[in-house]
Amino acid sequence: MTDFDDSVLSRDGFLGGRLRLWQPRRGYRAGVDPVLLAAAVPARAGQSVLELGCGAGAAILCLAARVPGLEATGVELQPGYAALARRNAADNDLGLEVICADLAALPAELRRRQVDHVIANPPYYRAGAHTRAADSGRAVALGEAETPLALWLEVAARRLAPRGMLHMIQRTERLPEILAACAGRLGSLEVLPLAARAGRAPDLVILRARKGGRAAFRLHAPLLLHQGACHGQDREDYAPEIAAVLRHGAALVWPETNGARAPSRRGHDGNVSLL
Amino acid sequence: MTDFDDSVLSRDGFLGGRLRLWQPRRGYRAGVDPVLLAAAVPARAGQSVLELGCGAGAAILCLAARVPGLEATGVELQPGYAALARRNAADNDLGLEVICADLAALPAELRRRQVDHVIANPPYYRAGAHTRAADSGRAVALGEAETPLALWLEVAARRLAPRGMLHMIQRTERLPEILAACAGRLGSLEVLPLAARAGRAPDLVILRARKGGRAAFRLHAPLLLHQGACHGQDREDYAPEIAAVLRHGAALVWPETNGARAPSRRGHDGNVSLL
Repeated sequence: MTDFDDSVLSRDGFLGGRLRLWQPRRGYRAGVDPVLLAAAVPARAGQSVLELGCGAGAAILCLAARVPGLEATGVELQPGYAALARRNAADNDLGLEVICADLAALPAELRRRQVDHVIANPPYYRAGAHTRAADSGRAVALGEAETPLALWLEVAARRLAPRGMLHMIQRTERLPEILAACAGRLGSLEVLPLAARAGRAPDLVILRARKGGRAAFRLHAPLLLHQGACHGQDREDYAPEIAAVLRHGAALVWPETNGARAPSRRGHDGNVSLL
Repeated sequence: MTDFDDSVLSRDGFLGGRLRLWQPRRGYRAGVDPVLLAAAVPARAGQSVLELGCGAGAAILCLAARVPGLEATGVELQPGYAALARRNAADNDLGLEVICADLAALPAELRRRQVDHVIANPPYYRAGAHTRAADSGRAVALGEAETPLALWLEVAARRLAPRGMLHMIQRTERLPEILAACAGRLGSLEVLPLAARAGRAPDLVILRARKGGRAAFRLHAPLLLHQGACHGQDREDYAPEIAAVLRHGAALVWPETNGARAPSRRGHDGNVSLL
Protein backbone atom coordinates (compact mmCIF):
# COMPACT_ATOMS: atom_id res chain seq x y z
CA MET A 1 0.00 0.00 0.00
CA THR A 2 1.31 3.45 -0.89
CA ASP A 3 0.05 6.88 0.12
CA PHE A 4 -3.65 7.43 0.63
CA ASP A 5 -5.48 9.63 -1.85
CA ASP A 6 -7.20 12.56 -0.12
CA SER A 7 -10.54 11.39 -1.44
CA VAL A 8 -10.45 8.34 0.86
CA LEU A 9 -9.54 10.36 3.97
CA SER A 10 -11.57 12.10 6.63
CA ARG A 11 -10.23 14.60 9.14
CA ASP A 12 -11.43 13.87 12.65
CA GLY A 13 -11.21 15.79 15.87
CA PHE A 14 -9.58 14.39 19.01
CA LEU A 15 -9.17 15.89 22.50
CA GLY A 16 -12.13 18.18 22.03
CA GLY A 17 -10.82 19.36 18.67
CA ARG A 18 -7.33 20.28 19.89
CA LEU A 19 -5.97 17.64 17.56
CA ARG A 20 -7.30 16.99 14.07
CA LEU A 21 -6.14 13.82 12.37
CA TRP A 22 -6.41 12.59 8.80
CA GLN A 23 -7.53 8.98 8.72
CA PRO A 24 -8.74 6.68 5.95
CA ARG A 25 -12.54 6.54 5.88
CA ARG A 26 -12.20 2.80 5.50
CA GLY A 27 -9.48 0.86 7.21
CA TYR A 28 -8.00 1.26 10.67
CA ARG A 29 -9.60 4.23 12.43
CA ALA A 30 -8.53 5.38 15.85
CA GLY A 31 -11.16 5.22 18.59
CA VAL A 32 -10.85 5.94 22.28
CA ASP A 33 -8.10 3.35 22.81
CA PRO A 34 -5.06 5.34 21.59
CA VAL A 35 -6.39 8.42 23.39
CA LEU A 36 -6.59 6.54 26.69
CA LEU A 37 -3.19 4.98 26.07
CA ALA A 38 -1.61 8.41 25.58
CA ALA A 39 -3.37 9.75 28.67
CA ALA A 40 -1.92 6.92 30.79
CA VAL A 41 1.71 7.88 30.14
CA PRO A 42 3.37 10.12 32.77
CA ALA A 43 5.85 11.61 30.29
CA ARG A 44 7.51 14.93 31.09
CA ALA A 45 8.88 17.70 28.88
CA GLY A 46 12.26 16.79 27.46
CA GLN A 47 11.73 13.03 27.62
CA SER A 48 11.88 10.75 24.61
CA VAL A 49 8.92 8.62 23.53
CA LEU A 50 8.81 5.89 20.93
CA GLU A 51 5.55 4.49 19.62
CA LEU A 52 5.68 1.04 18.07
CA GLY A 53 3.12 0.71 15.28
CA CYS A 54 1.96 4.33 15.35
CA GLY A 55 -0.53 4.11 12.47
CA ALA A 56 -1.71 7.61 11.56
CA GLY A 57 -0.26 8.86 14.84
CA ALA A 58 -3.29 9.13 17.12
CA ALA A 59 -1.66 7.93 20.34
CA ILE A 60 1.70 9.64 20.10
CA LEU A 61 0.20 12.89 18.81
CA CYS A 62 -2.32 12.92 21.69
CA LEU A 63 0.64 12.52 24.03
CA ALA A 64 2.68 15.21 22.24
CA ALA A 65 -0.32 17.54 22.40
CA ARG A 66 -0.56 17.07 26.18
CA VAL A 67 3.17 17.15 27.01
CA PRO A 68 5.10 19.91 25.21
CA GLY A 69 8.77 19.37 24.46
CA LEU A 70 8.67 15.62 23.96
CA GLU A 71 11.14 13.99 21.63
CA ALA A 72 8.62 11.81 19.78
CA THR A 73 9.30 8.99 17.34
CA GLY A 74 6.86 6.62 15.71
CA VAL A 75 7.59 3.37 13.90
CA GLU A 76 5.02 2.21 11.36
CA LEU A 77 5.17 -0.75 9.01
CA GLN A 78 2.73 0.54 6.39
CA PRO A 79 4.05 3.43 4.24
CA GLY A 80 0.56 4.91 3.76
CA TYR A 81 -0.04 5.20 7.50
CA ALA A 82 3.53 6.44 8.09
CA ALA A 83 2.93 9.24 5.58
CA LEU A 84 -0.38 10.10 7.29
CA ALA A 85 1.36 10.26 10.66
CA ARG A 86 3.94 12.72 9.25
CA ARG A 87 1.18 14.83 7.71
CA ASN A 88 -0.87 14.77 10.93
CA ALA A 89 2.14 15.88 12.98
CA ALA A 90 2.85 18.77 10.58
CA ASP A 91 -0.79 19.86 10.32
CA ASN A 92 -1.03 20.01 14.13
CA ASP A 93 2.36 21.73 14.58
CA LEU A 94 3.69 18.82 16.62
CA GLY A 95 7.18 17.38 16.31
CA LEU A 96 7.19 13.71 15.33
CA GLU A 97 9.79 11.63 13.57
CA VAL A 98 8.19 8.75 11.70
CA ILE A 99 10.24 5.73 10.68
CA CYS A 100 8.69 3.31 8.22
CA ALA A 101 10.02 -0.07 9.30
CA ASP A 102 9.14 -3.55 10.44
CA LEU A 103 9.50 -4.10 14.21
CA ALA A 104 11.45 -7.25 13.45
CA ALA A 105 14.03 -5.25 11.46
CA LEU A 106 14.40 -1.77 12.90
CA PRO A 107 17.03 0.42 11.23
CA ALA A 108 20.44 0.43 12.91
CA GLU A 109 20.14 4.10 13.86
CA LEU A 110 17.00 3.37 15.89
CA ARG A 111 18.52 0.23 17.40
CA ARG A 112 21.25 2.40 18.91
CA ARG A 113 18.73 4.65 20.71
CA GLN A 114 17.34 4.28 24.22
CA VAL A 115 14.12 6.08 25.13
CA ASP A 116 12.34 7.10 28.32
CA HIS A 117 8.94 5.81 27.19
CA VAL A 118 7.64 3.26 24.75
CA ILE A 119 3.95 3.13 23.92
CA ALA A 120 2.08 0.62 21.79
CA ASN A 121 -1.45 -0.28 20.75
CA PRO A 122 -0.67 -3.55 18.93
CA PRO A 123 -3.18 -5.25 16.65
CA TYR A 124 -5.94 -6.87 18.65
CA TYR A 125 -6.35 -10.10 16.75
CA ARG A 126 -4.06 -12.97 16.00
CA ALA A 127 -3.36 -13.91 12.41
CA GLY A 128 -6.14 -16.12 11.17
CA ALA A 129 -8.21 -15.70 14.32
CA HIS A 130 -11.01 -13.76 12.63
CA THR A 131 -12.58 -13.08 9.28
CA ARG A 132 -10.27 -11.38 6.86
CA ALA A 133 -11.00 -7.65 6.70
CA ALA A 134 -11.96 -6.44 3.24
CA ASP A 135 -9.40 -3.65 3.35
CA SER A 136 -5.78 -4.78 3.42
CA GLY A 137 -4.49 -1.80 5.43
CA ARG A 138 -7.20 -2.34 8.00
CA ALA A 139 -6.37 -6.04 8.01
CA VAL A 140 -2.76 -5.35 8.96
CA ALA A 141 -3.76 -2.78 11.59
CA LEU A 142 -6.38 -5.10 13.11
CA GLY A 143 -3.94 -7.89 13.51
CA GLU A 144 -3.62 -10.16 10.55
CA ALA A 145 0.01 -9.11 10.35
CA GLU A 146 2.36 -11.78 11.54
CA THR A 147 4.08 -9.87 14.35
CA PRO A 148 3.49 -11.76 17.63
CA LEU A 149 2.86 -9.75 20.81
CA ALA A 150 6.04 -11.19 22.32
CA LEU A 151 8.05 -9.40 19.63
CA TRP A 152 6.39 -6.06 20.44
CA LEU A 153 7.39 -6.52 24.08
CA GLU A 154 10.89 -7.66 23.25
CA VAL A 155 11.48 -4.64 21.00
CA ALA A 156 9.97 -2.31 23.62
CA ALA A 157 12.24 -3.69 26.34
CA ARG A 158 15.31 -3.35 24.11
CA ARG A 159 14.62 0.27 23.24
CA LEU A 160 13.88 1.40 26.82
CA ALA A 161 16.57 3.12 28.86
CA PRO A 162 17.09 1.78 32.40
CA ARG A 163 13.99 2.76 34.47
CA GLY A 164 12.18 3.59 31.22
CA MET A 165 8.46 2.80 31.06
CA LEU A 166 6.29 0.88 28.66
CA HIS A 167 2.56 1.52 28.30
CA MET A 168 0.59 -0.83 26.09
CA ILE A 169 -3.15 -1.15 25.49
CA GLN A 170 -4.45 -4.53 24.46
CA ARG A 171 -7.41 -6.88 24.69
CA THR A 172 -7.74 -8.50 28.10
CA GLU A 173 -7.72 -12.00 26.65
CA ARG A 174 -4.08 -11.49 25.60
CA LEU A 175 -2.97 -10.75 29.18
CA PRO A 176 -1.32 -14.16 29.87
CA GLU A 177 0.70 -13.82 26.65
CA ILE A 178 1.72 -10.25 27.57
CA LEU A 179 2.77 -11.11 31.11
CA ALA A 180 4.74 -14.12 29.90
CA ALA A 181 6.59 -11.98 27.35
CA CYS A 182 7.46 -9.41 30.04
CA ALA A 183 9.10 -12.02 32.28
CA GLY A 184 12.83 -11.39 32.47
CA ARG A 185 12.55 -8.26 30.31
CA LEU A 186 10.37 -5.76 32.16
CA GLY A 187 9.30 -5.44 35.80
CA SER A 188 7.03 -3.54 38.20
CA LEU A 189 4.09 -4.60 36.04
CA GLU A 190 0.77 -2.87 36.63
CA VAL A 191 -2.45 -3.71 34.84
CA LEU A 192 -5.27 -1.19 34.60
CA PRO A 193 -8.41 -2.90 33.29
CA LEU A 194 -10.80 -0.78 31.24
CA ALA A 195 -14.46 -1.72 31.62
CA ALA A 196 -17.46 -0.18 29.90
CA ARG A 197 -19.39 0.01 33.17
CA ALA A 198 -19.35 -1.16 36.79
CA GLY A 199 -19.80 -4.92 36.98
CA ARG A 200 -18.83 -5.52 33.36
CA ALA A 201 -15.80 -7.60 32.46
CA PRO A 202 -12.96 -5.38 31.27
CA ASP A 203 -12.44 -5.87 27.51
CA LEU A 204 -9.18 -3.96 27.45
CA VAL A 205 -6.19 -3.50 29.72
CA ILE A 206 -3.42 -0.92 29.86
CA LEU A 207 -0.13 -2.47 30.88
CA ARG A 208 2.49 -0.34 32.62
CA ALA A 209 5.96 -1.84 33.00
CA ARG A 210 9.38 -0.56 33.92
CA LYS A 211 12.76 -1.59 32.56
CA GLY A 212 14.64 -2.92 35.55
CA GLY A 213 11.59 -2.56 37.82
CA ARG A 214 11.38 -4.93 40.78
CA ALA A 215 8.05 -4.04 42.41
CA ALA A 216 5.38 -6.71 42.80
CA PHE A 217 2.74 -7.15 40.10
CA ARG A 218 -0.32 -5.00 40.64
CA LEU A 219 -3.84 -5.33 39.28
CA HIS A 220 -5.84 -2.14 39.73
CA ALA A 221 -9.55 -1.66 40.10
CA PRO A 222 -11.11 -1.33 36.65
CA LEU A 223 -11.34 2.13 35.15
CA LEU A 224 -15.01 2.56 34.26
CA LEU A 225 -15.56 4.37 30.97
CA HIS A 226 -19.24 5.05 31.42
CA GLN A 227 -21.48 5.90 34.31
CA GLY A 228 -24.72 4.18 35.14
CA ALA A 229 -25.99 0.77 34.25
CA CYS A 230 -26.80 1.14 30.55
CA HIS A 231 -25.86 3.23 27.59
CA GLY A 232 -27.47 6.69 27.33
CA GLN A 233 -29.05 7.41 23.99
CA ASP A 234 -26.80 10.39 23.31
CA ARG A 235 -23.62 8.49 24.26
CA GLU A 236 -22.77 11.46 26.46
CA ASP A 237 -22.44 9.46 29.64
CA TYR A 238 -18.67 9.09 29.86
CA ALA A 239 -17.42 9.08 33.42
CA PRO A 240 -16.07 12.56 34.29
CA GLU A 241 -12.47 11.34 34.45
CA ILE A 242 -12.81 9.78 30.99
CA ALA A 243 -14.55 12.81 29.54
CA ALA A 244 -11.67 14.96 30.83
CA VAL A 245 -9.25 12.75 28.92
CA LEU A 246 -11.24 12.47 25.70
CA ARG A 247 -12.55 16.02 25.45
CA HIS A 248 -9.96 18.09 27.28
CA GLY A 249 -6.73 16.13 26.86
CA ALA A 250 -6.29 15.48 30.57
CA ALA A 251 -3.83 12.90 31.88
CA LEU A 252 -5.26 9.71 33.26
CA VAL A 253 -4.63 9.42 36.98
CA TRP A 254 -3.52 5.91 37.89
CA PRO A 255 -5.27 4.48 40.96
CA GLU A 256 -2.22 4.78 43.19
CA THR A 257 1.11 6.31 42.46
CA ASN A 258 3.34 4.47 44.91
CA GLY A 259 4.33 0.92 44.13
CA ALA A 260 5.02 -0.26 47.65
CA ARG A 261 2.32 -1.35 50.03
CA ALA A 262 2.66 -3.58 53.02
CA PRO A 263 1.22 -6.97 52.13
CA SER A 264 -2.06 -7.58 53.91
CA ARG A 265 -2.54 -10.87 55.69
CA ARG A 266 -6.28 -10.74 55.48
CA GLY A 267 -7.70 -14.20 55.68
CA HIS A 268 -4.58 -15.94 56.82
CA ASP A 269 -4.65 -14.83 60.41
CA GLY A 270 -8.02 -13.12 60.45
CA ASN A 271 -10.40 -13.51 63.32
CA VAL A 272 -12.88 -16.05 62.11
CA SER A 273 -15.42 -14.92 64.70
CA LEU A 274 -16.05 -11.95 62.40
CA LEU A 275 -17.56 -14.26 59.80
CA MET B 1 5.25 -30.55 64.54
CA THR B 2 3.02 -33.31 65.84
CA ASP B 3 -0.62 -33.20 66.93
CA PHE B 4 -1.99 -30.07 68.54
CA ASP B 5 -2.91 -30.24 72.22
CA ASP B 6 -6.55 -29.30 72.81
CA SER B 7 -5.46 -26.45 75.03
CA VAL B 8 -4.05 -24.54 72.03
CA LEU B 9 -7.17 -25.01 69.90
CA SER B 10 -10.34 -23.00 69.45
CA ARG B 11 -13.50 -24.21 67.76
CA ASP B 12 -14.87 -21.66 65.30
CA GLY B 13 -18.09 -21.46 63.36
CA PHE B 14 -18.22 -21.22 59.56
CA LEU B 15 -21.17 -20.90 57.16
CA GLY B 16 -23.38 -19.41 59.83
CA GLY B 17 -22.45 -22.16 62.29
CA ARG B 18 -23.25 -25.06 59.94
CA LEU B 19 -19.61 -26.05 60.15
CA ARG B 20 -17.52 -25.90 63.32
CA LEU B 21 -13.78 -26.28 62.91
CA TRP B 22 -10.98 -26.82 65.39
CA GLN B 23 -8.08 -24.53 64.67
CA PRO B 24 -4.93 -23.59 66.58
CA ARG B 25 -5.41 -20.31 68.44
CA ARG B 26 -2.01 -19.32 67.17
CA GLY B 27 -0.76 -20.31 63.75
CA TYR B 28 -2.62 -20.52 60.47
CA ARG B 29 -6.27 -19.65 60.99
CA ALA B 30 -8.81 -19.80 58.20
CA GLY B 31 -10.51 -16.53 57.30
CA VAL B 32 -12.93 -15.76 54.50
CA ASP B 33 -10.54 -16.95 51.78
CA PRO B 34 -11.08 -20.73 51.98
CA VAL B 35 -14.83 -20.13 52.36
CA LEU B 36 -14.94 -18.06 49.16
CA LEU B 37 -12.72 -20.60 47.38
CA ALA B 38 -15.11 -23.43 48.26
CA ALA B 39 -18.09 -21.33 47.18
CA ALA B 40 -16.50 -20.73 43.76
CA VAL B 41 -16.38 -24.42 42.84
CA PRO B 42 -19.31 -25.77 40.77
CA ALA B 43 -18.90 -29.33 42.03
CA ARG B 44 -21.83 -31.75 41.82
CA ALA B 45 -22.83 -34.74 43.91
CA GLY B 46 -20.77 -37.80 43.03
CA GLN B 47 -17.76 -35.86 41.78
CA SER B 48 -14.29 -36.18 43.25
CA VAL B 49 -12.46 -33.21 44.77
CA LEU B 50 -8.85 -33.01 45.86
CA GLU B 51 -7.56 -30.15 47.98
CA LEU B 52 -3.84 -29.51 47.86
CA GLY B 53 -2.58 -28.16 51.19
CA CYS B 54 -5.87 -28.56 53.05
CA GLY B 55 -4.66 -27.34 56.46
CA ALA B 56 -7.36 -27.97 59.06
CA GLY B 57 -9.83 -28.55 56.22
CA ALA B 58 -11.74 -25.25 56.02
CA ALA B 59 -12.06 -25.04 52.23
CA ILE B 60 -12.80 -28.66 51.40
CA LEU B 61 -15.17 -29.08 54.36
CA CYS B 62 -17.08 -25.92 53.34
CA LEU B 63 -17.41 -27.47 49.89
CA ALA B 64 -18.45 -30.87 51.29
CA ALA B 65 -21.02 -29.13 53.49
CA ARG B 66 -22.54 -27.41 50.45
CA VAL B 67 -22.41 -30.35 48.00
CA PRO B 68 -23.51 -33.67 49.48
CA GLY B 69 -22.05 -36.85 48.06
CA LEU B 70 -18.63 -35.53 47.12
CA GLU B 71 -15.66 -37.85 47.16
CA ALA B 72 -13.32 -35.51 49.04
CA THR B 73 -9.59 -35.89 49.59
CA GLY B 74 -7.15 -33.48 51.21
CA VAL B 75 -3.38 -33.49 51.08
CA GLU B 76 -1.56 -31.76 53.91
CA LEU B 77 2.16 -31.58 54.60
CA GLN B 78 1.99 -30.91 58.33
CA PRO B 79 0.83 -33.88 60.45
CA GLY B 80 -0.74 -31.64 63.10
CA TYR B 81 -2.99 -29.93 60.55
CA ALA B 82 -3.73 -33.22 58.79
CA ALA B 83 -4.92 -34.67 62.11
CA LEU B 84 -7.08 -31.58 62.70
CA ALA B 85 -8.63 -31.94 59.24
CA ARG B 86 -9.56 -35.57 60.01
CA ARG B 87 -11.03 -34.56 63.36
CA ASN B 88 -12.97 -31.65 61.81
CA ALA B 89 -14.44 -33.94 59.13
CA ALA B 90 -15.54 -36.50 61.73
CA ASP B 91 -16.96 -33.87 64.11
CA ASN B 92 -19.05 -32.40 61.30
CA ASP B 93 -20.16 -35.77 59.91
CA LEU B 94 -18.50 -35.10 56.58
CA GLY B 95 -16.52 -37.62 54.56
CA LEU B 96 -12.93 -36.58 53.97
CA GLU B 97 -9.83 -38.65 53.31
CA VAL B 98 -6.72 -36.83 54.51
CA ILE B 99 -3.31 -37.80 53.19
CA CYS B 100 -0.29 -36.43 54.99
CA ALA B 101 2.27 -35.89 52.24
CA ASP B 102 4.49 -33.41 50.47
CA LEU B 103 3.12 -32.16 47.13
CA ALA B 104 6.49 -32.91 45.61
CA ALA B 105 6.24 -36.57 46.64
CA LEU B 106 2.62 -37.72 46.61
CA PRO B 107 2.06 -41.38 47.44
CA ALA B 108 1.79 -43.67 44.42
CA GLU B 109 -1.84 -44.49 45.17
CA LEU B 110 -2.79 -40.81 44.86
CA ARG B 111 -0.62 -40.38 41.77
CA ARG B 112 -2.75 -42.99 40.03
CA ARG B 113 -6.00 -41.07 40.68
CA GLN B 114 -7.69 -38.49 38.47
CA VAL B 115 -10.22 -36.11 40.00
CA ASP B 116 -12.99 -33.85 38.73
CA HIS B 117 -11.92 -30.86 40.83
CA VAL B 118 -8.74 -29.65 42.46
CA ILE B 119 -8.85 -26.75 44.90
CA ALA B 120 -5.97 -24.96 46.57
CA ASN B 121 -5.28 -21.97 48.79
CA PRO B 122 -1.48 -22.05 48.64
CA PRO B 123 0.69 -20.07 51.05
CA TYR B 124 0.59 -16.38 50.25
CA TYR B 125 4.22 -15.48 50.71
CA ARG B 126 7.41 -16.59 49.09
CA ALA B 127 10.15 -18.10 51.19
CA GLY B 128 12.23 -15.32 52.68
CA ALA B 129 9.92 -12.58 51.39
CA HIS B 130 8.67 -11.57 54.84
CA THR B 131 9.55 -11.69 58.48
CA ARG B 132 9.72 -15.17 59.91
CA ALA B 133 6.53 -16.02 61.74
CA ALA B 134 7.03 -16.86 65.40
CA ASP B 135 5.05 -20.09 65.11
CA SER B 136 6.59 -22.74 62.89
CA GLY B 137 3.26 -24.26 61.80
CA ARG B 138 1.96 -20.84 60.90
CA ALA B 139 5.22 -20.13 59.10
CA VAL B 140 4.79 -23.13 56.83
CA ALA B 141 1.11 -22.32 56.21
CA LEU B 142 1.86 -18.66 55.45
CA GLY B 143 4.44 -19.56 52.90
CA GLU B 144 7.89 -20.04 54.26
CA ALA B 145 7.70 -23.58 53.00
CA GLU B 146 9.75 -24.12 49.91
CA THR B 147 7.00 -25.32 47.57
CA PRO B 148 6.84 -22.93 44.59
CA LEU B 149 3.44 -22.02 43.13
CA ALA B 150 4.44 -23.64 39.86
CA LEU B 151 4.62 -27.00 41.63
CA TRP B 152 1.10 -26.56 43.04
CA LEU B 153 -0.18 -25.93 39.52
CA GLU B 154 1.81 -28.78 38.02
CA VAL B 155 0.48 -31.23 40.61
CA ALA B 156 -3.07 -29.91 40.15
CA ALA B 157 -2.87 -30.35 36.37
CA ARG B 158 -1.51 -33.89 36.74
CA ARG B 159 -4.27 -34.98 39.10
CA LEU B 160 -7.16 -33.52 37.07
CA ALA B 161 -9.18 -35.73 34.75
CA PRO B 162 -9.73 -34.40 31.22
CA ARG B 163 -12.12 -31.39 31.47
CA GLY B 164 -11.51 -31.34 35.23
CA MET B 165 -11.39 -27.92 36.90
CA LEU B 166 -8.92 -26.21 39.16
CA HIS B 167 -9.91 -23.39 41.53
CA MET B 168 -7.15 -21.61 43.38
CA ILE B 169 -7.23 -18.51 45.58
CA GLN B 170 -4.07 -16.47 45.80
CA ARG B 171 -2.70 -12.97 46.23
CA THR B 172 -3.08 -10.86 43.12
CA GLU B 173 0.61 -10.08 42.97
CA ARG B 174 1.33 -13.74 42.19
CA LEU B 175 -0.90 -13.69 39.08
CA PRO B 176 1.93 -13.54 36.49
CA GLU B 177 3.59 -16.55 38.13
CA ILE B 178 0.28 -18.43 38.20
CA LEU B 179 -0.58 -17.73 34.58
CA ALA B 180 2.92 -18.71 33.47
CA ALA B 181 2.69 -22.00 35.34
CA CYS B 182 -0.68 -22.77 33.73
CA ALA B 183 0.68 -22.36 30.21
CA GLY B 184 0.69 -25.70 28.44
CA ARG B 185 -0.95 -27.44 31.40
CA LEU B 186 -4.37 -25.87 31.95
CA GLY B 187 -6.62 -23.77 29.72
CA SER B 188 -9.82 -21.71 29.65
CA LEU B 189 -8.33 -19.58 32.42
CA GLU B 190 -10.66 -17.20 34.23
CA VAL B 191 -9.60 -14.78 36.92
CA LEU B 192 -12.10 -13.43 39.43
CA PRO B 193 -10.54 -10.56 41.39
CA LEU B 194 -11.72 -10.07 44.98
CA ALA B 195 -11.75 -6.46 46.14
CA ALA B 196 -12.71 -5.10 49.52
CA ARG B 197 -14.84 -2.35 47.97
CA ALA B 198 -15.63 -0.64 44.67
CA GLY B 199 -12.61 1.24 43.39
CA ARG B 200 -10.13 -0.67 45.57
CA ALA B 201 -7.40 -2.77 44.02
CA PRO B 202 -8.20 -6.48 44.35
CA ASP B 203 -5.83 -8.07 46.87
CA LEU B 204 -6.85 -11.60 45.99
CA VAL B 205 -7.87 -13.51 42.90
CA ILE B 206 -9.65 -16.79 42.35
CA LEU B 207 -8.29 -18.65 39.34
CA ARG B 208 -10.52 -21.06 37.46
CA ALA B 209 -8.85 -23.31 34.90
CA ARG B 210 -9.82 -26.38 32.96
CA LYS B 211 -7.68 -29.35 31.98
CA GLY B 212 -7.75 -29.39 28.20
CA GLY B 213 -9.70 -26.10 28.04
CA ARG B 214 -9.19 -23.94 24.96
CA ALA B 215 -11.32 -20.86 25.64
CA ALA B 216 -9.70 -17.41 25.67
CA PHE B 217 -8.42 -15.98 28.95
CA ARG B 218 -11.03 -14.00 30.83
CA LEU B 219 -10.69 -11.37 33.53
CA HIS B 220 -13.95 -10.73 35.32
CA ALA B 221 -15.19 -7.60 37.03
CA PRO B 222 -14.01 -7.65 40.66
CA LEU B 223 -16.22 -9.32 43.20
CA LEU B 224 -16.79 -6.68 45.88
CA LEU B 225 -16.78 -8.07 49.40
CA HIS B 226 -18.24 -5.01 51.09
CA GLN B 227 -20.79 -2.41 50.19
CA GLY B 228 -20.30 1.31 50.50
CA ALA B 229 -17.18 3.41 50.58
CA CYS B 230 -15.79 2.64 54.03
CA HIS B 231 -15.93 -0.02 56.67
CA GLY B 232 -19.00 -0.02 58.89
CA GLN B 233 -18.24 -0.09 62.59
CA ASP B 234 -20.04 -3.37 63.11
CA ARG B 235 -18.33 -5.04 60.12
CA GLU B 236 -21.81 -6.18 59.08
CA ASP B 237 -21.65 -4.59 55.66
CA TYR B 238 -20.77 -7.61 53.51
CA ALA B 239 -22.33 -7.42 50.07
CA PRO B 240 -25.48 -9.58 50.01
CA GLU B 241 -23.91 -12.14 47.68
CA ILE B 242 -20.90 -12.47 49.99
CA ALA B 243 -23.05 -12.65 53.12
CA ALA B 244 -25.02 -15.47 51.48
CA VAL B 245 -21.76 -17.37 50.98
CA LEU B 246 -20.26 -16.70 54.41
CA ARG B 247 -23.37 -17.03 56.56
CA HIS B 248 -25.59 -19.39 54.60
CA GLY B 249 -23.17 -21.55 52.62
CA ALA B 250 -24.41 -20.36 49.23
CA ALA B 251 -22.46 -21.00 46.05
CA LEU B 252 -20.69 -18.08 44.47
CA VAL B 253 -22.19 -17.16 41.12
CA TRP B 254 -19.47 -16.42 38.55
CA PRO B 255 -20.11 -13.29 36.47
CA GLU B 256 -20.97 -15.22 33.32
CA THR B 257 -21.33 -18.91 32.79
CA ASN B 258 -20.60 -19.22 29.08
CA GLY B 259 -17.04 -18.96 27.94
CA ALA B 260 -17.62 -17.83 24.39
CA ARG B 261 -18.30 -14.25 23.43
CA ALA B 262 -17.80 -12.58 20.08
CA PRO B 263 -14.77 -10.31 20.27
CA SER B 264 -15.71 -6.66 20.23
CA ARG B 265 -13.91 -4.33 17.89
CA ARG B 266 -14.57 -1.27 19.97
CA GLY B 267 -11.99 1.37 19.28
CA HIS B 268 -10.56 -0.16 16.18
CA ASP B 269 -13.26 0.85 13.78
CA GLY B 270 -15.26 3.13 16.03
CA ASN B 271 -16.68 6.37 14.82
CA VAL B 272 -14.32 8.99 16.21
CA SER B 273 -16.99 11.68 15.83
CA LEU B 274 -18.52 10.20 18.98
CA LEU B 275 -15.52 11.34 21.01
